[in-house]
Amino acid sequence: MLNVDISNIWGSLSLPELLGAEREVFDAHKLLVSGKGPGSDYLGWLDLPVFEPTDEMIRIRGAAKRIQESSDIFVVVGIGGSYLGPRAAIELVKGQFHNLRGRDTQVFFAGNNLSTRAWQELCALLEGKDFSINIISKSGTTTEPAIATRALKWMLERKYGAEAAKKRIFVTTDPNRGALRQMAAEEGYETFVIPPNVGGRYSVLTAVGLLPMAVAGMDITELMFGAASARRDMLNLFSFENPAWLYAAARNLLYRNGKVLELLCSWEPSARFFGGWWQQLFGESEGKDGKGIFPATAEFTADLHSLGQLIQQGERNLFETVVRFAPAPKKTIIDMDWKNLDGLNYLEGKSLDFVEEQAFQGTLAAHTDGGVPVILVQADEIGDRVLGELFFFFELSCGISAYLLGVNPFNQPGVELYKKNMFHLLGKPGY
Amino acid sequence: MLNVDISNIWGSLSLPELLGAEREVFDAHKLLVSGKGPGSDYLGWLDLPVFEPTDEMIRIRGAAKRIQESSDIFVVVGIGGSYLGPRAAIELVKGQFHNLRGRDTQVFFAGNNLSTRAWQELCALLEGKDFSINIISKSGTTTEPAIATRALKWMLERKYGAEAAKKRIFVTTDPNRGALRQMAAEEGYETFVIPPNVGGRYSVLTAVGLLPMAVAGMDITELMFGAASARRDMLNLFSFENPAWLYAAARNLLYRNGKVLELLCSWEPSARFFGGWWQQLFGESEGKDGKGIFPATAEFTADLHSLGQLIQQGERNLFETVVRFAPAPKKTIIDMDWKNLDGLNYLEGKSLDFVEEQAFQGTLAAHTDGGVPVILVQADEIGDRVLGELFFFFELSCGISAYLLGVNPFNQPGVELYKKNMFHLLGKPGY
Repeated sequence: MLNVDISNIWGSLSLPELLGAEREVFDAHKLLVSGKGPGSDYLGWLDLPVFEPTDEMIRIRGAAKRIQESSDIFVVVGIGGSYLGPRAAIELVKGQFHNLRGRDTQVFFAGNNLSTRAWQELCALLEGKDFSINIISKSGTTTEPAIATRALKWMLERKYGAEAAKKRIFVTTDPNRGALRQMAAEEGYETFVIPPNVGGRYSVLTAVGLLPMAVAGMDITELMFGAASARRDMLNLFSFENPAWLYAAARNLLYRNGKVLELLCSWEPSARFFGGWWQQLFGESEGKDGKGIFPATAEFTADLHSLGQLIQQGERNLFETVVRFAPAPKKTIIDMDWKNLDGLNYLEGKSLDFVEEQAFQGTLAAHTDGGVPVILVQADEIGDRVLGELFFFFELSCGISAYLLGVNPFNQPGVELYKKNMFHLLGKPGY
Repeated sequence: MLNVDISNIWGSLSLPELLGAEREVFDAHKLLVSGKGPGSDYLGWLDLPVFEPTDEMIRIRGAAKRIQESSDIFVVVGIGGSYLGPRAAIELVKGQFHNLRGRDTQVFFAGNNLSTRAWQELCALLEGKDFSINIISKSGTTTEPAIATRALKWMLERKYGAEAAKKRIFVTTDPNRGALRQMAAEEGYETFVIPPNVGGRYSVLTAVGLLPMAVAGMDITELMFGAASARRDMLNLFSFENPAWLYAAARNLLYRNGKVLELLCSWEPSARFFGGWWQQLFGESEGKDGKGIFPATAEFTADLHSLGQLIQQGERNLFETVVRFAPAPKKTIIDMDWKNLDGLNYLEGKSLDFVEEQAFQGTLAAHTDGGVPVILVQADEIGDRVLGELFFFFELSCGISAYLLGVNPFNQPGVELYKKNMFHLLGKPGY
């Protein structure tokens, strides 16, 4: 089980404060799992993790295999959780260079912006390549993915002909309703399900995340096994032995003590988009009613030479949550250099992991000294299973945390306003 | 000249407040250009922009041409500004897929982390490829780049032999001192200069940024022309007609009114690392003495479906700075679809730029309505020249802004503590 270590927050929070919150955390957790809290129509994510592959997962693996065989490129069309979830997973596990290795099917994302440049750059990559697409949307009418879908569908039909194109379009949507469901039925696309009781930011363990991950070569059975293990360990553990309790409680109490900003720090460059997924999960779940911690992200050691100064000596209104992974077995050893012009010979024979560990410990001590509380989330080595654990851990923590904060974790009423304004300006019928 | 529009901040700041700060801004600007303020040993960046290429720039273009001819991959080794500056520039101008197009020399970055996975992934990409490296460091002893340098140098020597390897190592460092200068002299590497009076986060317009940009196919003469134009327009304009004044004043006054977080928003996915460069510039310059706005970044529209909820309805402690680029001439037009299942036919014949503009206006209105002040930085179409303007504009704004805040913009005393701790733990001689 992953471990949450709060031994570096005591300068900003007292043990009695934490223990005094036990009843509150209990109530929040209870409210969540009882299905009686606000937003409880969207609790489907609690039951997604499974130890054995479901029929849908088996179908996903089959589709992924066909896509890998038929396509150089797989374009995933989606926005919000339909973009951040699969991108986070693939970059973390397959690495930041997964599209550059030239042996696997490349996975690109579209429909998450309105940039003409970004679109034309993607089109240039598709030129002369075999590709398939995955349209992910509950409704099928969200503007960004709908525009990308229309264009990509047309490109596929022109390239392969209308009938063959249908075999290259995979739809992940509501099981019954919406424009995309209807389109899939009329055109005969293979479809996968977003359960109606799972919201976008909680959807990574549905086909939303699983199909792109499987195409990228991830083991989705392992991922779900990891999530199911976390679920088994945490869902019904009503005490501070539950890492989700510790995390949810610590961040809420730090927020009450004036820490308005949480910096999710990773020591792995491939975790950049995992930070993006986490940012949506917490930002959209908690940022409402004039409340909510601002979720920011940092990548160490790069950002120790960027945000490090501010973390050390700036406003004391932030705390860190560090996600640490156990080192991989394959080591990189620092060599001897007889000239030693760089003065590094004192590290000769040491592994890069060893240096990283000392840098981590040194940073932890420095930031704690500087008055920045640090919550440490310690996970095993990066891989499908560990990622599954992390996904469920953060989802559960977020549900508990938002109830502790006194907000509905599962709505996003503020997202509509920009859309309404935009539709009005675009002249959309009815606006 | 780029334009700063503050017409969407008046809910959180009054015109008398702004006008009342004119004298303060004048003094801050005067302090900066007089060279009498704190940190004035590091004002070299003020005079870097030039309308005509310098000898060093001509030499950089020559080296870049040789590198392009001899190398599939160019590895840039550096951390802090030596990493964020060139990466920001290349991704913004050459696009987020610049390493995927398969015709130009690829540019990768190393020495900015201690991740074994990231290092091994880079090594896998180098396998079987011709490559050259650029070591960027004032001292040559910063741990992360020094470790990467040692390993890459050894890989080059093994692959090409010691003599031929020397032609593939390019050093950007202090003109006279330091371990890297000494190494370059002993080994006979071609060198470029980081002037001693230019700090890391202000170094993008030196060889630090220019050599990687030139290798990536950017026009560094145009970039410097843009920076020189901004310098000519802004350096001696002592009034609120100066965009740097407006930006520096607005953000400081918003900060005094409780806006502790600035969100740099872009509508271009390729601007992600430009945000990283900006984050270091402002975070490291201002985050000290218990003060400083926290600089966070967002990418719209993707993050409207992630942070958008919180921006609209969360804590009212943040403001936005939106960097907008003029649309490119090449349009993408939305097609008709006779079935219209996605309901998008009302956009038939419209350009993607048009949709983006309405989304931008809709978002601006929504966020302003929600109580979030928005500073708008309007630039011309993305390109070398505009990027040069932006670099100088933000650098000048930052100098003025930090003096307004009452801190030294050019030191970073807090960055040393983690290093000291780390060296002690690593057993470095003398610690």
